[in-house]
Amino acid sequence: MNSDSKEQYLIEKEPYYKEVHDEISLYEAAYAARLPMMVKGPTGCGKSRFVEYMAWRLKRPLITVACNEDMTASDLVGRFLLDKDGTKWQDGPLTTAARIGAICYLDEIVEARQDTTVVIHPLTDHRRTLPLDKKGELIQAHPDFQLVISFNPGYQSSMKDLKQSTKQRFGALDFSYPERTIEVEIVAHESGVSEDMAEKLVSIAERSRNLKGHGLDEGLSTRMLIYAGALIQKGVAPIAACSMALVRPITDDPDMRDALDAAVGTFF
Amino acid sequence: MNSDSKEQYLIEKEPYYKEVHDEISLYEAAYAARLPMMVKGPTGCGKSRFVEYMAWRLKRPLITVACNEDMTASDLVGRFLLDKDGTKWQDGPLTTAARIGAICYLDEIVEARQDTTVVIHPLTDHRRTLPLDKKGELIQAHPDFQLVISFNPGYQSSMKDLKQSTKQRFGALDFSYPERTIEVEIVAHESGVSEDMAEKLVSIAERSRNLKGHGLDEGLSTRMLIYAGALIQKGVAPIAACSMALVRPITDDPDMRDALDAAVGTFF
Amino acid sequence: MNSDSKEQYLIEKEPYYKEVHDEISLYEAAYAARLPMMVKGPTGCGKSRFVEYMAWRLKRPLITVACNEDMTASDLVGRFLLDKDGTKWQDGPLTTAARIGAICYLDEIVEARQDTTVVIHPLTDHRRTLPLDKKGELIQAHPDFQLVISFNPGYQSSMKDLKQSTKQRFGALDFSYPERTIEVEIVAHESGVSEDMAEKLVSIAERSRNLKGHGLDEGLSTRMLIYAGALIQKGVAPIAACSMALVRPITDDPDMRDALDAAVGTFF
Amino acid sequence: MNSDSKEQYLIEKEPYYKEVHDEISLYEAAYAARLPMMVKGPTGCGKSRFVEYMAWRLKRPLITVACNEDMTASDLVGRFLLDKDGTKWQDGPLTTAARIGAICYLDEIVEARQDTTVVIHPLTDHRRTLPLDKKGELIQAHPDFQLVISFNPGYQSSMKDLKQSTKQRFGALDFSYPERTIEVEIVAHESGVSEDMAEKLVSIAERSRNLKGHGLDEGLSTRMLIYAGALIQKGVAPIAACSMALVRPITDDPDMRDALDAAVGTFF
Amino acid sequence: MNSDSKEQYLIEKEPYYKEVHDEISLYEAAYAARLPMMVKGPTGCGKSRFVEYMAWRLKRPLITVACNEDMTASDLVGRFLLDKDGTKWQDGPLTTAARIGAICYLDEIVEARQDTTVVIHPLTDHRRTLPLDKKGELIQAHPDFQLVISFNPGYQSSMKDLKQSTKQRFGALDFSYPERTIEVEIVAHESGVSEDMAEKLVSIAERSRNLKGHGLDEGLSTRMLIYAGALIQKGVAPIAACSMALVRPITDDPDMRDALDAAVGTFF
Amino acid sequence: MNSDSKEQYLIEKEPYYKEVHDEISLYEAAYAARLPMMVKGPTGCGKSRFVEYMAWRLKRPLITVACNEDMTASDLVGRFLLDKDGTKWQDGPLTTAARIGAICYLDEIVEARQDTTVVIHPLTDHRRTLPLDKKGELIQAHPDFQLVISFNPGYQSSMKDLKQSTKQRFGALDFSYPERTIEVEIVAHESGVSEDMAEKLVSIAERSRNLKGHGLDEGLSTRMLIYAGALIQKGVAPIAACSMALVRPITDDPDMRDALDAAVGTFF
Repeated sequence: MNSDSKEQYLIEKEPYYKEVHDEISLYEAAYAARLPMMVKGPTGCGKSRFVEYMAWRLKRPLITVACNEDMTASDLVGRFLLDKDGTKWQDGPLTTAARIGAICYLDEIVEARQDTTVVIHPLTDHRRTLPLDKKGELIQAHPDFQLVISFNPGYQSSMKDLKQSTKQRFGALDFSYPERTIEVEIVAHESGVSEDMAEKLVSIAERSRNLKGHGLDEGLSTRMLIYAGALIQKGVAPIAACSMALVRPITDDPDMRDALDAAVGTFF
Repeated sequence: MNSDSKEQYLIEKEPYYKEVHDEISLYEAAYAARLPMMVKGPTGCGKSRFVEYMAWRLKRPLITVACNEDMTASDLVGRFLLDKDGTKWQDGPLTTAARIGAICYLDEIVEARQDTTVVIHPLTDHRRTLPLDKKGELIQAHPDFQLVISFNPGYQSSMKDLKQSTKQRFGALDFSYPERTIEVEIVAHESGVSEDMAEKLVSIAERSRNLKGHGLDEGLSTRMLIYAGALIQKGVAPIAACSMALVRPITDDPDMRDALDAAVGTFF
Repeated sequence: MNSDSKEQYLIEKEPYYKEVHDEISLYEAAYAARLPMMVKGPTGCGKSRFVEYMAWRLKRPLITVACNEDMTASDLVGRFLLDKDGTKWQDGPLTTAARIGAICYLDEIVEARQDTTVVIHPLTDHRRTLPLDKKGELIQAHPDFQLVISFNPGYQSSMKDLKQSTKQRFGALDFSYPERTIEVEIVAHESGVSEDMAEKLVSIAERSRNLKGHGLDEGLSTRMLIYAGALIQKGVAPIAACSMALVRPITDDPDMRDALDAAVGTFF
Repeated sequence: MNSDSKEQYLIEKEPYYKEVHDEISLYEAAYAARLPMMVKGPTGCGKSRFVEYMAWRLKRPLITVACNEDMTASDLVGRFLLDKDGTKWQDGPLTTAARIGAICYLDEIVEARQDTTVVIHPLTDHRRTLPLDKKGELIQAHPDFQLVISFNPGYQSSMKDLKQSTKQRFGALDFSYPERTIEVEIVAHESGVSEDMAEKLVSIAERSRNLKGHGLDEGLSTRMLIYAGALIQKGVAPIAACSMALVRPITDDPDMRDALDAAVGTFF
Repeated sequence: MNSDSKEQYLIEKEPYYKEVHDEISLYEAAYAARLPMMVKGPTGCGKSRFVEYMAWRLKRPLITVACNEDMTASDLVGRFLLDKDGTKWQDGPLTTAARIGAICYLDEIVEARQDTTVVIHPLTDHRRTLPLDKKGELIQAHPDFQLVISFNPGYQSSMKDLKQSTKQRFGALDFSYPERTIEVEIVAHESGVSEDMAEKLVSIAERSRNLKGHGLDEGLSTRMLIYAGALIQKGVAPIAACSMALVRPITDDPDMRDALDAAVGTFF
Repeated sequence: MNSDSKEQYLIEKEPYYKEVHDEISLYEAAYAARLPMMVKGPTGCGKSRFVEYMAWRLKRPLITVACNEDMTASDLVGRFLLDKDGTKWQDGPLTTAARIGAICYLDEIVEARQDTTVVIHPLTDHRRTLPLDKKGELIQAHPDFQLVISFNPGYQSSMKDLKQSTKQRFGALDFSYPERTIEVEIVAHESGVSEDMAEKLVSIAERSRNLKGHGLDEGLSTRMLIYAGALIQKGVAPIAACSMALVRPITDDPDMRDALDAAVGTFF
């Protein structure tokens, strides 16, 4: 087991990232102050990519945890495993990050049980400690350690929101879909289609985003546009590619499908 | 334990599959782009058969997981087992597929807990990684790996739907019962009855499908027609075979049974 | 542990079974086609006895599992056990049946969690496979293997019904209480009372069955009549035997008890 | 571990039991037919004592299980335990009873989860078998084995009732508080007070039983009268003894307490 | 492990206890009859102290268990632990008490799951046995063993009440706050303040007890008065001590706080 | 494992703490009387810092436990771990604190299950004991041991409040945001900004606190002001710093964001 080998968590290649506003310099200041950060925004708008990019830029290891409702505090912090000589402590991802000075990214934090999130509290105030209660050890976080969480305010219901005592421990950056020219550049770059084709895909997405809350839970994301572009690059006809990568995944409602098909038909 | 022996997951014999539209070439393009895929449609219409056929055609190992509500992330990803020398890591089916470059087919994904599905996220975006948090290892998926999920939109309720952040990670193909001439050919081929007999069975199914939402949750599936045909081939009288394989399994409601029996009586 | 010793599951002595319609030949055809079967009917009408009889007639081992809500997929499929050399796989009853070519009878399937029943799906379609996800093994069912499930449609509520995707994988046989002359013969044979006495008991049962849905959840079953007959054979007075074996077990409602006692009083 | 030592379950001394009607001979006939039995009645009326008495009379070992909602099938049937050589099977009380031919008494069966009770089904019909699914063994019950369950119909709600498919597997005996002269004799014998004193206690109980459903969930039981008598025998004044053993335990409602205190005051 | 060393459970020093009515002699009679006892009353009125005092007086070891909803039957009865030679049985506190003849005190029994309380039933009737189902052993309680439970009727809701079949197994003693002169004596003795100061504290408490049900869930307990007295003894000004030990802990409601502060202001 | 090494829990450096009223001397008196303490107040107002400061001042080790709903009694008290020689007891943080005479601080106690909190009861009355039921040991707390809990009355709902029987075991200190001049001093000291800048930040916070209950669940905390100051110190423009550290984390509601942005605009 090599959970403490810091190298495997370093991002070797610069991830493709287009700055939208001034989020890069703001994040750098937050990291300099070791302020815990929260990145908010709809699914597929580039939150995870941004965190990956910042880890590369800051040359810090990145440890990502996809949160889910079954995740226990032990999954974050660690547990005892059976060994031939009895039990042996195995650090969890949060503990590893605190020890090696990584950026720990808790993705989709709203999925985690509110109370599980309590374990991150002592890491997010002046103490910067992580008590391993089961082991009887108190970890002082590495000076380079930082905690980042993501969540999608669109999902936010009274059942699944962060507690104020958690929220108030983080600085926050809002993300949205990038503005038209940037999104066109991203789609073209990532999928390999022409700027012209990318523009059409972005136009379809913009129409879908106006339907959010009027029958669609979310609009088409940048990621979906890249998928459609990739299919077109593999030789699929644009209408079929849009149907397969944009319309059919996002909704099963016949009226919404008609509306989205019509949007596709306008451009192809 | 031979969980990494790739050969056992190869489909040796070409599965019988009749193309309905252009789903074969669309899937091939999606696989070429390694786009994660979602196959949607009613029960027994051939979704699993199609995925099996594509795995055979693409000569990729296929690992199928029947999802259920009790399935934990560990069931997909793996767990530590006790060995005579202590604990030993055992890959789960998703991890095995990611390592050996298989198509991993998560059947009836709506059954799985929404939050369990979060573990597939990093495998379905640009990262194509699978973090084994418990082991402290980060797997980079094999270049041939692809994820496919199935679900039945007919079941879709507010309780059991996929989250947008999951949906938007997949291209989608819609399946339905095949058109009449193709379905007749399939029933005849699979059950061994004559085309004439198969046509009668398909006609009964078509009537039942009009009752969907008017007392029946689902119409008769192609699979059920094949079962009825198989009984007829074994010498059971057609009316008895239809009663046993079509009418009695699908409903206990006396009125619906009368309606279906009448449909059977029209043709036999 | 001798879970794979096929002999212990063979029915040695012919079980007493009176055919009611043509269910024996229908089942034989279904078995010849290896069609998974579902036997439906009220409690105590002879479903389990029928399956036992068919297993004896077809000379196949029979593995019966009494389903319950706590039953996990592991209880059906198998699990790792600790051994002096570490963990050892232990087949569950379904896996054993699939390996040795037994008839596997899942009794009272409605009790099992709907999602647990998903594990039987790949065994009930063209694949006839059982994936042991935890072990990383894919079992191809023995050619003689067949799956049979029972359920009582009277219990069927929206909470506890089989899913369409499960139902459509089975042929179905309906069972009810046998017709008068056959039931008399069964009660006399099984309890040892005279045909005349058996006739009286069956008459009481018929009256109770008219009360189903009018204060009684179920009518008196054939099994209960046999119990009453057995007590009479042991020298208990008929009225006391009926009170103890028929009236008191079935209801605590004073009015229903009066109605049933009156029915008993008519014949004794 | 001596779970199979039959002697420890034999009742050595004749338990004190006063027959109320003809329940002794009825039970003997039921045991002769090996009919599974259900004893019904309010708390503290002597059900457990009766079963103990019958076990003594029939010279059969008695294994009693106090049912509760946390009881799993494994608690009844058995489980694997870790041993120095790996796992070892440990029979549960039901399995032990089936092997050694004991009377197995499941006390307060309504407390058990309805679905846990399914495991007793194959022991209660013609099969008289107990499948140990986890061990892959099928037990044929000892010829002397009998199953007895108790439940209190007063608790019976739609949530906590036995299923018809369970009820119909048992003969039933109703119990109630014994008639006045017998109850007086029991109270005097068990507590050591005079018949005269016992009569007063029984009179108080009779008044309380009229309050059942009018503010009291249950009336005073025979057991409580014996407790009050025992305190009086230890020198406690009758009013204080009744307050402590009869009134205060049964209710915290001030009006009900006044009513019961008044009843006590009438006789002391 | 020394769970059976009886000495550690003996109360060495006489606990301070002021008799309120005749509860000491009543308890002695109950113990002489080995009648299981239930002590009822509001929090902090001296129930636990009384049981401790009686254990000292009777020279019996006392084993106290603080009940909670997570407590399983195994926590009371015992479980198998892993040892270097396999599993070893570890008695729970109830089993230890039954073996060594201790008084077993289940504190705040309403917290325990109703069904967990079923395990105490065979210890509380004529049987005085405790079946260790998991071990296959039947314990006969030591002649000196007695069971005592406490509960607070003020909490009693339909969700958290004892079942009649549990209640009827116990004699009951009601506790309340002691009468004024006794409470003054207790507060002075326990906190070290003068009788005069104690009288003022008791007066404040009496006012608060009138607010019970009018905005306060419970009045101030004797224990709280002792805490306030102890702070005064440590040099804290009486008003500050009352605020800290009486008013602020008991309520966050501003109106109630004003009312209580006013009561404090009347006396200091 | 060094869970009993007292030194690691000592606070070496004096934590920065500004007294608001007389809480330091009150706490000292409470500690002298070993009165268990409860610190109440909104998130981020300095409760944890105060406890840390008092531990430093009193030169007592401090063991902090972040409470959460999944926390079991075993997490507080301890459990058996597997060792090469079998099981070994591992003290939990509460047990360690009781043994070494530490201050045990249960942070955010309302998160813990009400019934888990029952385990602290015997440590908070005259007994000062902790029964380790699973180990059969009764711990007498070290004379220096004290228990402190925190909770936020703003969260208090009928679902998540402490029980009276818990509340009445603690003295209480109320905390709120410090008064203006003290808060300015704290923000300047902790973030490094000028007093002038700190004053502006405090002014913004005061406006937000008036919105509590009018669209905001909580006002801006002192901790958030320190975060904003830290970003300004790192060169972020004040408006951007306030947006990132104050406005965006606290709410996603557009109207509230406008209101808060306006407050920020007033001062920068």
